[in-house]
Amino acid sequence: MEKIAIFPGSFDPFTVGHENIVRRGLKLFDKIIIAVGYNATKSYYFNVEDRKRFIEAQFSDESRITVETYTNLTVEFAKERNADSILRGIRTAADFEYERAIAQVNRLMSGIDSVFLLTTPEHTPVNSSIVRDILKHKGDASQFIPDIIYQLILDSDNY
Amino acid sequence: MEKIAIFPGSFDPFTVGHENIVRRGLKLFDKIIIAVGYNATKSYYFNVEDRKRFIEAQFSDESRITVETYTNLTVEFAKERNADSILRGIRTAADFEYERAIAQVNRLMSGIDSVFLLTTPEHTPVNSSIVRDILKHKGDASQFIPDIIYQLILDSDNY
Amino acid sequence: MEKIAIFPGSFDPFTVGHENIVRRGLKLFDKIIIAVGYNATKSYYFNVEDRKRFIEAQFSDESRITVETYTNLTVEFAKERNADSILRGIRTAADFEYERAIAQVNRLMSGIDSVFLLTTPEHTPVNSSIVRDILKHKGDASQFIPDIIYQLILDSDNY
Amino acid sequence: MEKIAIFPGSFDPFTVGHENIVRRGLKLFDKIIIAVGYNATKSYYFNVEDRKRFIEAQFSDESRITVETYTNLTVEFAKERNADSILRGIRTAADFEYERAIAQVNRLMSGIDSVFLLTTPEHTPVNSSIVRDILKHKGDASQFIPDIIYQLILDSDNY
Amino acid sequence: MEKIAIFPGSFDPFTVGHENIVRRGLKLFDKIIIAVGYNATKSYYFNVEDRKRFIEAQFSDESRITVETYTNLTVEFAKERNADSILRGIRTAADFEYERAIAQVNRLMSGIDSVFLLTTPEHTPVNSSIVRDILKHKGDASQFIPDIIYQLILDSDNY
Amino acid sequence: MEKIAIFPGSFDPFTVGHENIVRRGLKLFDKIIIAVGYNATKSYYFNVEDRKRFIEAQFSDESRITVETYTNLTVEFAKERNADSILRGIRTAADFEYERAIAQVNRLMSGIDSVFLLTTPEHTPVNSSIVRDILKHKGDASQFIPDIIYQLILDSDNY
Repeated sequence: MEKIAIFPGSFDPFTVGHENIVRRGLKLFDKIIIAVGYNATKSYYFNVEDRKRFIEAQFSDESRITVETYTNLTVEFAKERNADSILRGIRTAADFEYERAIAQVNRLMSGIDSVFLLTTPEHTPVNSSIVRDILKHKGDASQFIPDIIYQLILDSDNY
Repeated sequence: MEKIAIFPGSFDPFTVGHENIVRRGLKLFDKIIIAVGYNATKSYYFNVEDRKRFIEAQFSDESRITVETYTNLTVEFAKERNADSILRGIRTAADFEYERAIAQVNRLMSGIDSVFLLTTPEHTPVNSSIVRDILKHKGDASQFIPDIIYQLILDSDNY
Repeated sequence: MEKIAIFPGSFDPFTVGHENIVRRGLKLFDKIIIAVGYNATKSYYFNVEDRKRFIEAQFSDESRITVETYTNLTVEFAKERNADSILRGIRTAADFEYERAIAQVNRLMSGIDSVFLLTTPEHTPVNSSIVRDILKHKGDASQFIPDIIYQLILDSDNY
Repeated sequence: MEKIAIFPGSFDPFTVGHENIVRRGLKLFDKIIIAVGYNATKSYYFNVEDRKRFIEAQFSDESRITVETYTNLTVEFAKERNADSILRGIRTAADFEYERAIAQVNRLMSGIDSVFLLTTPEHTPVNSSIVRDILKHKGDASQFIPDIIYQLILDSDNY
Repeated sequence: MEKIAIFPGSFDPFTVGHENIVRRGLKLFDKIIIAVGYNATKSYYFNVEDRKRFIEAQFSDESRITVETYTNLTVEFAKERNADSILRGIRTAADFEYERAIAQVNRLMSGIDSVFLLTTPEHTPVNSSIVRDILKHKGDASQFIPDIIYQLILDSDNY
Repeated sequence: MEKIAIFPGSFDPFTVGHENIVRRGLKLFDKIIIAVGYNATKSYYFNVEDRKRFIEAQFSDESRITVETYTNLTVEFAKERNADSILRGIRTAADFEYERAIAQVNRLMSGIDSVFLLTTPEHTPVNSSIVRDILKHKGDASQFIPDIIYQLILDSDNY
């Protein structure tokens, strides 16, 4: 049976840390669906269509990775896609506590398990909020964002 | 002398974890006042009157528990009610750091002590923010909210 | 009904932080039994009789506090003394995680609840291990140990 | 290609939390080798052969799980068994920090990734050190140890 | 060569903890620039000019401390001022994780190092968010804010 | 006035993370004394003279760094050397809590401040305990130990 995982997040923007987790996840899963979440009441730096477009461009070489947007509960989206795992990266102890609560509630609601990989040491300080702040100030974020995505960001209206 | 504690929070919504802490608190205190806080500048999922109404319904069987709303500083409200303790539940290490700062400042300002009970293992992942997210998406939150409150929520306009 | 708590620990040595927690605990409990644990296979800086003697001297003014030694499981000792609470102080987030596991297991085994007070800010860095290290090196530990106990330590053979 | 993971630990003793992680790991891996570590210079409550025997008895129904002992570096053992993942459970934020250092060093040395599952809420407080302490004091540890293993422990000389 | 550090923050308001860190920082640096950050899209309790004015009044006795406002990236501002260090205080483990990510990214972008001092025990619970809450409710925050600043706050329109 | 710091530790062994902290510390201090601690009642992997010899070889190019052994309290040793700062690296949140207690007690006893730098991301997982374990098993620890020291270790009797 095909092993499918979703990799949910807002990815505002997608970083080198996210990319690293997804590529390593391919050793565990046959197919990974990057699930770009959005919430009508929240504001984002990049709109959901741009975020999806950026990530698709980055993984155009990898047919086992697809990108979708979703607005329902993460476990509902996973069930719709026949995914039986949620893939997540963890960076810090603070992340861990937050992720643990979400993962345990998800499992209680649906039986779907979360599988965690750790970011590599050099990616540990990189999070979307810090990267967004660099972009807002027109700083050089090239070492924190995958190459193809970074080029698309530089070319986008939003930058 | 009667031992009175307040149990402050925004309770948006009140969860099975909150209920568990209050009921266990009755072994320590003669009377517990559940103090529903609100702040005119914040937005809530349930308005303060609904939150108060939900909790009162849940504890209608227990005369030693009362429910009130308040807008002033927590230690001021405690003093007005002759409470000499603030009861709190702690779930995680991250909670702990936040609670410690608040509790130590409260004690420095008023001499009123905070008393902590730990959530039971099965309630540890349950927090109001996650439960609210389930409610927003019309997911099944029945295992995370006390029965009487959950029924009132399902019947409310807000749901 | 009389409210009895035990305050368990190895107290090697008893610090100003411990004293502060016990005295504040008297607002919650009618009687507190300081339960000095020891384990035949562990080595201690002060032997269990000295630790008991030091603490008794410190609280000779307070009839609601008694001191006992014990070797069985903490929850067994609590039951033998009709205590329905275990009083504990928490200093740090790391302490918290350790205490949570112990407290939840204790409750699962016996139904006995642990009640936590936070150390005051100025006592937060004080733990028995650091204080012991100062004593070993004949440093001045007077600000970290209650006065009566510190005098007894200075007079003891072990110092 | 067969997906093989090792699940390393000292398992002194193996708990219900360990069992839960291994069984859930079977959804990710074709084969899991429970790798019972020992170190000639450390002392254990149960000797390594007993620990291996207990775990084998517990999983006698599951041909995809095998049990082995090892003394070399965990990554060396994994390579010898053609395992390309190390399966681990995480309980707390404190665990996480320790596991992260080990996992990142393992990956730097060998390219072998660690895959983490979270303990379920009710197993979060259960760790081998606490369970060992209960066994030493002849307390009832039946809810913390898998049934077959618990029976073997009660029958063993060591208990 | 003169050693210059910036001490960045929003200081809304500046607390006794901040003052303590800056004064101790003078043992390490010849000159400290307190860098008051602001962000046009955020709302503050005190406007940036008031925050700057309060801090200048507090340090009018100390010529080695200057106060400036800035809106660009912290590392860009540091470079403009020839500062080769960023001075920061850390209070808690949660603070630490956040500070670590920022500091490591800053160093990767600019080579500028962050230097950390720990708040003293009695200042550990004091953070601007808690103090702001006390001010909003007209509570007595005099023990948490340096004297000169507190007087200016009481005299200000905003209070 | 010359700014002197001590950099205390057991350094069993000295890692690339330690080296990185000391070299960056030279931007803050005129002179750094690496203070190799030992305790007659503890056992070490490398004896104190070897540890001192290894570190001296590594820094033979840097006259502002000296290496000494000490057995008294860290603050006593610092005072004897006219050091008014203790330099420390922090890796993780768990480290932080431990370091905070030590640093605050040191300051209460002596007025000597601790100054913290963060390990770089790639050094964050490297700690002496993990490295020691690799050495014990004759694994390749070359990426975790400075080159000169690693060569000396390979040549030593102990390896």
